[in-house]
Amino acid sequence: MITIALDAMGGDHGVGVTVPAALQTLSQEAALKVILVGQSDVLRKELTRLRAAENDRLSIHHASEVIAMDESPAQALRSKKDSSMRVAINLVKEGVAQAAVSAGNTGALMATARFVLKTLPGIDRPAIITTLPTTHGHVHVLDLGANVDCTPEQLVQFAMMGSILVSAVEGKDKPRVGLLNIGEEDIKGNDSVKKTNELLRATGLNYCGFVEGDEIYTGDMDVIVCDGFVGNVMLKTSEGLAQMITHFMKQEFKRNLLTKISAVIALPVLRAFRKRVDPRRYNGATLIGLNGTVIKSHGGADKLAFQCAILEALAEVKNNVPERIGRELAAMSARETLA
Amino acid sequence: MITIALDAMGGDHGVGVTVPAALQTLSQEAALKVILVGQSDVLRKELTRLRAAENDRLSIHHASEVIAMDESPAQALRSKKDSSMRVAINLVKEGVAQAAVSAGNTGALMATARFVLKTLPGIDRPAIITTLPTTHGHVHVLDLGANVDCTPEQLVQFAMMGSILVSAVEGKDKPRVGLLNIGEEDIKGNDSVKKTNELLRATGLNYCGFVEGDEIYTGDMDVIVCDGFVGNVMLKTSEGLAQMITHFMKQEFKRNLLTKISAVIALPVLRAFRKRVDPRRYNGATLIGLNGTVIKSHGGADKLAFQCAILEALAEVKNNVPERIGRELAAMSARETLA
Repeated sequence: MITIALDAMGGDHGVGVTVPAALQTLSQEAALKVILVGQSDVLRKELTRLRAAENDRLSIHHASEVIAMDESPAQALRSKKDSSMRVAINLVKEGVAQAAVSAGNTGALMATARFVLKTLPGIDRPAIITTLPTTHGHVHVLDLGANVDCTPEQLVQFAMMGSILVSAVEGKDKPRVGLLNIGEEDIKGNDSVKKTNELLRATGLNYCGFVEGDEIYTGDMDVIVCDGFVGNVMLKTSEGLAQMITHFMKQEFKRNLLTKISAVIALPVLRAFRKRVDPRRYNGATLIGLNGTVIKSHGGADKLAFQCAILEALAEVKNNVPERIGRELAAMSARETLA
Repeated sequence: MITIALDAMGGDHGVGVTVPAALQTLSQEAALKVILVGQSDVLRKELTRLRAAENDRLSIHHASEVIAMDESPAQALRSKKDSSMRVAINLVKEGVAQAAVSAGNTGALMATARFVLKTLPGIDRPAIITTLPTTHGHVHVLDLGANVDCTPEQLVQFAMMGSILVSAVEGKDKPRVGLLNIGEEDIKGNDSVKKTNELLRATGLNYCGFVEGDEIYTGDMDVIVCDGFVGNVMLKTSEGLAQMITHFMKQEFKRNLLTKISAVIALPVLRAFRKRVDPRRYNGATLIGLNGTVIKSHGGADKLAFQCAILEALAEVKNNVPERIGRELAAMSARETLA
């Protein structure tokens, strides 16, 4: 049995999304227990509305405060010790839950998780890693915004963590690791990526060299590493471009009666297409490098998207991701000491 | 009459694209003269194949060498003094042509243009600026890869140049300028963007603060500024995502007989949609900040795309972009000296 603590108050939609998503996931996953963390009166009301109740796999854990989406992380960390987010992470620290999932304020989640759980030995700073679709399958990219300035040594740690995550969750033996740059030749890029490139060649990782931006969606890497500034811009640019494309396509299909009819005829295809690139199915970014599993859901997540984030937490706990990262990093540093 | 020198040998397709694009543009633009720069025998053969000949608006200027797409810029600059690219830019320097257009090696083009034409007074380094579609219209983004490390002062110069370009070509009085960051609050981002943010507030530009990645395609800025590393990753990521989306849509429409029929029915809509996001229509990035107009076409440009790059050159020459940038920068520095 795996227990997951949900920050039930977090996100743009709060309990209206987190509670239905929890119920749905519980009905599908027999080995899952969920603790809904938040204001107990609000949570009880939502359960009643959904004709559900606490049971041996679903419990409420009261937390009196809520962190706002635009609250400063430092402020939230200092003053809201009984927030749903903080209490959910505390439950992981205490071993009551094996993972925490939150759709709340990213900065506050990272600051709180780092403060409460601490980073794994050998890891300077945690990173945010997520899965993105590609023409051939999918790819894991980190960091997505936790670290605006990264040293080459930190980027190497990110590469190691990403590689171990993919090995653990997908059973791949030697995940292919690429370093994001603005050209594929060794002379391209800034000093930081050049130095990181050298360091990565000296690791035991299956490091495949530089990749350019277009290879995120069309390449064949398992893990792509970049600093959090570049990763965040890349991810949000992708969101914006997808929105624009959807907007234009809707406009064209709504132009007149004829185009509306063709939209109806093309609907099954458009649905199948949308399902393949549906960002909700890729929801759930991991705060990687911590003593424990913490998953960040998109703030605007709906029920399906939030379910995907819970399932990501479940997969990582099942596969002991933090333990494996800790163990393999210790083994690496032991090898280096011997060498 | 405006004369444009084409690096007719550059790009993945060379004369097979540059020459037909030149002929087509000449037939549409009565006030345009084109000089095809490259190996005269190859160019003459291509003209013959297209049943065209030199005339008072179309001439051939021989250049014996060609720069390969993967050649080192330093090497190309040092050893290929008679390359089609170098000679085309020389013609701008000599005043024979008012602009040069090339689909060749970006690094070599930037190095050569900078060496031959020099930067405008007050500009440390040229940048690459291009137009991207948005839900509301379009936006100009720079730098796209000429400068991997930028100082805040250089980013401010980029903002000024972008703003002047939009004023000149689009007749906008006070173009809205945004600075790309990973959040909109003043505390977000790395030291470089924070410092640039402060400097931009002190300029006379219509500076609107930080914008996030998604606002490139969905926001309402006229100019978005970023360093060349971030800009290049952003642009190439967009290319990759668009490719992936196209790939999935084609796959879904080709799945079976029924989906193929719906594709035929939806074809007019799909065509109209494609036209709106067609990257060929946005082809033609400007090397901005030089004493002269140099336009970089995508290496893989086809005839339509290369035509768009020629038209971009024409628009910038008509609107005296380099002169206006030079004049306005001089005025700004005079104001600062007086203040």
